[in-house]
Parts: sequence; structure tokens; C-alpha cells
Amino acid sequence: MLVTDLIRRKRDGAELQRDEIAFLVDSYTRDAIPDYQMSAWLMAVVLRGMSRAELAALTESMLNSGEVLSFSELPAPKVDKHSTGGVGDKTSLVIAPIVASAGLYVPMISGRGLGHTGGTLDKLESIPGFSVNLSVADFRRVLAQCGTGLIGQTKEIAPADKKIYALRDVTGTVESPYLICASIMSKKLAEGIDALVLDVKTGSGAFMKAEKDAVFLAELMVETGQRLGKRIAALITDMDQPLGRAVGNALEVAECVDILNGQGPADLRELCLVLSAWMFLLGKRVQGIDQGRELAEQMISSGKAREKFREMIRLQGGNPAVVDDPGLLPRAAQTADIKSPASGFVTGFMCEQIGTAGVLLGGGRARKEDSVDPAVGIMVHKKVGDRVTAGEPLCTIHYNSAERLQQAQPLIVQSYRIESAMALQKRALVHRIIGDQS
Amino acid sequence: MLVTDLIRRKRDGAELQRDEIAFLVDSYTRDAIPDYQMSAWLMAVVLRGMSRAELAALTESMLNSGEVLSFSELPAPKVDKHSTGGVGDKTSLVIAPIVASAGLYVPMISGRGLGHTGGTLDKLESIPGFSVNLSVADFRRVLAQCGTGLIGQTKEIAPADKKIYALRDVTGTVESPYLICASIMSKKLAEGIDALVLDVKTGSGAFMKAEKDAVFLAELMVETGQRLGKRIAALITDMDQPLGRAVGNALEVAECVDILNGQGPADLRELCLVLSAWMFLLGKRVQGIDQGRELAEQMISSGKAREKFREMIRLQGGNPAVVDDPGLLPRAAQTADIKSPASGFVTGFMCEQIGTAGVLLGGGRARKEDSVDPAVGIMVHKKVGDRVTAGEPLCTIHYNSAERLQQAQPLIVQSYRIESAMALQKRALVHRIIGDQS
Repeated sequence: MLVTDLIRRKRDGAELQRDEIAFLVDSYTRDAIPDYQMSAWLMAVVLRGMSRAELAALTESMLNSGEVLSFSELPAPKVDKHSTGGVGDKTSLVIAPIVASAGLYVPMISGRGLGHTGGTLDKLESIPGFSVNLSVADFRRVLAQCGTGLIGQTKEIAPADKKIYALRDVTGTVESPYLICASIMSKKLAEGIDALVLDVKTGSGAFMKAEKDAVFLAELMVETGQRLGKRIAALITDMDQPLGRAVGNALEVAECVDILNGQGPADLRELCLVLSAWMFLLGKRVQGIDQGRELAEQMISSGKAREKFREMIRLQGGNPAVVDDPGLLPRAAQTADIKSPASGFVTGFMCEQIGTAGVLLGGGRARKEDSVDPAVGIMVHKKVGDRVTAGEPLCTIHYNSAERLQQAQPLIVQSYRIESAMALQKRALVHRIIGDQS
Repeated sequence: MLVTDLIRRKRDGAELQRDEIAFLVDSYTRDAIPDYQMSAWLMAVVLRGMSRAELAALTESMLNSGEVLSFSELPAPKVDKHSTGGVGDKTSLVIAPIVASAGLYVPMISGRGLGHTGGTLDKLESIPGFSVNLSVADFRRVLAQCGTGLIGQTKEIAPADKKIYALRDVTGTVESPYLICASIMSKKLAEGIDALVLDVKTGSGAFMKAEKDAVFLAELMVETGQRLGKRIAALITDMDQPLGRAVGNALEVAECVDILNGQGPADLRELCLVLSAWMFLLGKRVQGIDQGRELAEQMISSGKAREKFREMIRLQGGNPAVVDDPGLLPRAAQTADIKSPASGFVTGFMCEQIGTAGVLLGGGRARKEDSVDPAVGIMVHKKVGDRVTAGEPLCTIHYNSAERLQQAQPLIVQSYRIESAMALQKRALVHRIIGDQS
């Protein structure tokens, strides 16, 4: 096979065969194709798109470029959830204990925060002692013991994705739903799962600002998952304002504990229940969504999910006492309230700015190499639809550096839209559902 | 300037600024941008195209990446002709002496044959002793002395084109009229010319098989030349059959001598006269095309062009006696006639196959590194519209290797379309003209 021929055919809009795509991915992964040929091919993919068969072939090749885990020894279905990322999006920490406490397995390989969105690994690492860098053998043992484990990407999993992503990052080929789908799905399907629930965010705090882009990506991921033999569904969910009230690693862990205690913000609780319900359904633990939701509620009210979270923390080296006393989590040295400049209603957010403010405070990463401050963040008191009076706190900033505070503060103030009259329709939390409903 | 930003903007169809394109070309030429970024950008150009302003900026940057010759000391306009290449296309060897003998300067930097098309340099090198590798200083002296010189690409001229072309060759980004235009024009405009006539070939023996593609490329080149301050015109000319009768380096030189002697095939003579006339017009030597044509005919009939050819050969180290006795040119050891399988009329050619047969005989290059046999080739006796009887020779193959003959022969036989009735309309030699007609 001639690489230039494959590049030219993709360039001219032809459909490549499964073995041709496998040849490209395999050769590139073992350095037998130079970067300059792969980047030309990737740009042709960005501009020409892919058929669903090509996309499944690309995903499969990337998936098979490394270790594909199998937990067939575990006696119940393995399910996972993936989110495309948002601000205050912390559902994994709640869902994994809920679903595991009801008898399914949740082998979750997560990412770190980048840009304005947070990352599950960074949140977990704010728990003193918690390690996300388990070997596959340790991961397997934690999973067998408590039903869930949350670790970082290992170098054995989907090395093709790692290499291709690094190239995309510097060649203007990140923004393609096809390449995004293959990247996400190749890693997720390496987890040895039977079913997957996708939380595809849309709105001002999401990567996909326009709902139609989120829906298109969701459809690609669902069809790709189905072609590769998985039960899969995608929920298009709202990211026009932060999810819950906490934005910042330790603050978010504390909020997750609230949810597991049957408290916490209603929107976060609702999304955790809905996502858990879908995981139960696709994991064949229940027959319908309503039943799944009830089961999730039971896992919270019975304290079983909370107990599962404690167990998981302990098995991964963390201090489980944080579940009883979130005061053991890192705390920022200082706080500052952001006061409302006017009376009226909160009618909207520029949500990405809240995430960016969190990065500026030190809680996230502008570049991959940056380290994060687990303690800093923002507690959002007023959200869309809330009435405010001038001078009332909109949110509280937890900070460790006055300089960083000064950088972050204006972004947060400008992010709020406050209007005298309340003329908005609240957006639904779940906009639509794509995929297996069986 | 961020390279990824420039790639993404081109990818999204935005128009880049002149300084942005210059930054890309300059940085790439001095290895400050890696191949993988340039190839992604080139693929985006292939699929998104360029505005005329971007194309002029790209051409200008590539032109200015190296030495730009100036012959301002020479007391008459400098004009050149460029052909996009064809089979039996040997007009440069005739035109340069015609135009120089009438007092204009023709500083011609030519290429070598690649694929099915021949190259001017290979033809010239079939003349014993002739050197195409002159230094710029020697080129300048030859030009001043006899009004024309024909040399090869020097490493000082348009190094950006050399580097970009090598990358395009292996990344599926050759086939773009924009990139082809920038490549051709950046080299031609480095010749220090005032005017340029483009011979853009179309038909089965041309790179642009479809006339609309040839016209589009011609329009791009004409506008680019005009934007960079040159007088320029393009002729769309026929390449549905070999030009003249000779295909092969030494055979073609002999045919050029025939033309300069007032003999030779009518189509080749006609195209040489028309192209010379355009060079005279754009070089302001005449006021109209008819006058230019008369002047070209005079240069032939007076023997001045022939004398100029002899002088140029001598100044470039070749044996000028070949002009008097083409028998001094290399001759193949053997010849073989291809006989017509049927009686009727020649109604068409698969012209590219004739060129490929010439390569197989050893007269051209499949790869850049190949050396060529100056003596071998094909003399085409029957062309479109000619009546043939079964068994009559269609052409004669000049060969040095029976094995190569066997490879080439079938291609030539299959190339001819012979039909019992003559139902064709002869295609005009010049299909249309684009550009300055002043």
C-alpha cells in the first residue's frame, strides 16, 4: 500500500477500506510513516470527513494499537460513562460509587483538566493520598474488590491515539468530530466495558457550543460504539452554566460528598441520577429508566454509594475520612465574595469564562505541563433564574494568591448576565437522548 | 504568528494576509517550521483553494526565497516562454533562437523530463558537449553575447519551491492548480524577465487532460504574473497527439533543426511561430500578432534563427556542427517500424502512452534519479487525420535494447485509434488565449 495513494484518495473524497486505515494507523504508531504524511491525511479527514465505516475502522485500529483490557473474570456487566467536559462537571465521582454499589462494575479511565474544563483525575488527587497512577494489575484488584476504580490513561492503552493527538495538536487538525470521536472511543473501548453512557455537553461552557455539533458528535460516537459491539447511549446535556455550585478540585469533591449524603445542588443530583439510571439500563441491571433512577436514589439514601466511595478512596491510597469530614480536603487560604452590581435576575452565564477563571486561580491547566492547586476555586451561589439584589454575593472565590485573584475576578464578574426582568425559559438539563433505549 | 493558527484559518476557508504567507514560506525554507505543519497547511490549500491575492503572495514569497536575477544591463526586453509539458513538445529550442535573433533577450531556465513528458534540458544535452549547468555569471555572459541561453534550475533560485515541491510529492498535495501555479511562476519570475508567454497544454498527452482545468490554471498564472508586474499571456494548446513527429531527445533536436531550416512538421512550425509572435508582442518588439508572426517567419527564412541556434550551442560548449549535420547527434543502434493493423484513418491517440513508451525505451525518467538515453525515441509518421493502409508503418522506434523495445511496443500500438471512416473534426492547435492582448 502506498501512503501517498491513501492520502490522495482521502483528499479526493473516496472511502478508504478497513485494512487501509489499519495500515495507516499501525504504520504511524510504529514510526513507519512520517509525521508529515499523517498530518496531510488528517487534514484531508478534517475537510472531507469520514464514512461511518471508516470511522469505526479508525477507532478500531487506534483501540487495537495497544492493550485492550478485559475483565471477563468479573461476574457482572462492566459499564462506564464519558463526558465531553464542562465547568463544574464532577458526576464521575458520584456515579461510579452509585453504580458499583448496585452490583455493576465501573472501570473508569479518566483524564486531566485542560483549558477551561476540569478533569476527574485532578479532582481525585485533591483527596490526600489518593493515587490515580495504578498499574493495570492494581486497577484490576481494586475493581474486583469494590466494583469501581478510577485511574489515569496508561501508556499501554491506545498509544496510536496519544501519538495522533500530539500531532493534531500542532497541525490544526483537532477540530474534527470524526477525529474527536475516534480519540474518545478508542480509549473508552480499551477499558473492557460492555456498555457506555456518553454525556455530551452543549452550551457556553462546553467544547461544542452549538447543540447541532454536540448532536452530530454524539451520533458518531453512538454509531461507532454500536459497530464495535457495545451497548451505548448519549445524553445531550446542558453546559450553559456551571454544573452544581462548586468549580475547583477540592471544592468539587466536597460537593460530591454532599450529593452522596443526599444533599447538594439539585441540578448535579439530577444529572447523576439520570446518568446512573442509563448505566443501569445499558448494564442490564434494570428494565427501564425509571427503575434505574429509583435504584440510584436507593443507593444514595441507603448510604451504600457513600460507603462505596469511601472504600474506593481507601483502596486507591486516599484518606477515606474526607467522606465524613470534607474539612480534611485542602482549603484555600482566603476567600472573596463577588457581589452583584445590580438587582434583578441572573439570566445567563458566559460559562467558559468561569472555567477560565478557575484556571487563572491556579485550579486548572493552560498547558499540559502546568501543575494545579487543589484548594482554589469558585463557589457559585446564584445561578440562572435566581433573584439577586445589588451587593448580594453572586459567588465566593477561594484563592491562595492575590495576584491570581485579580486576574480571575473580572472574568467572573463579566460572566454573569443580570437583567431586571426575568424573561428566560430555563433550559432543560437533558436536551435529548441518542442511542440504545432498550 | 502561530503556525497552528495559520493552518486552522486556511482549513476554515479564511483568507491569509500577505505577511502571514510570507512568514510561512520563509520559516519553512529555513527549517523553522516542521514538515508536518507545512504538509497540513498544503493539504488545506489543496482542499480550500486560495484567493488570487493569497496566490500572488505565495508566489512572491517563493520567488523571493532565493536569488532573483536581473538583466537590467541588457538593452532590450527580456521575455520567456513556459510550457506545462507534453509529448514531443520541443518548441523552446526553436523559439529561443527565433526571438533572440530578432533582438529580444530570452533567458530560459528549463526543466528535465519527468514521467511521460520530455524536458528541454535532456534534449539539449543530446548535443555533444552542450552544458546546461552554467553558473549565473556564465549564463549572464552567454545571454549578453547571443541574446539567449538555456540552463537548468540553480540551487540559488526559489529554494522554497524546491523544498515545498519535495514535500508535496510525498504528501498527496501535488494536484492543486494553486500550488502548481506558485511553483511554476516563482521559478519563471526569478529569471528577471519583463514578459512571459505560457503554453498550457490540454489533451490526452498533457498533465491537464480536461480543457477547463488547463484554462483555470492558465487564468491563475496570468493573474499572478500580472499582480507581480509582468506582461503575460497564456495559450491553451492541443496535446491530444505528439507535437511534430519526433519523440526522443536527439530526434527532437534534429526536428528543431528542420524547423529552423524552414522545413519540418507543419504543427510544430505553426506553434513555434505563434508562440514567438506572442513573445514579440509582449516584449514590445511588434505592435500586433500578425506582425510578430511575420517577424518570426523572417527569422527562419533569413537563416538568422538557425545561426543564433548555432551560436548558442557553441557558447554553451556544444558542437555547433549538429545544426549542419544532425547525423552528428547520437543515433540509436536499431530501428523497428510499427505497422498499421488495419486500413482506415488515424482518428485519435492515447498520447500519454506515446510519452510513456519513450520513457520505457530509456529516453525519459520514471524517477528523478534515472539517467536518459539521448538516442532512443519514436518517429511518428501517421497522425490524426492521416489515411493508412494495413501494414503501412505508423511510426518507427529507435532503440538500443530489444528488451526495452518489447516493453514499449505494445503501448505504441494500443495508443493509435484507427477507424474505417473519417468522422473527426481536427482540433485546432491553439484552443484559446488568456491574458494581455495589447
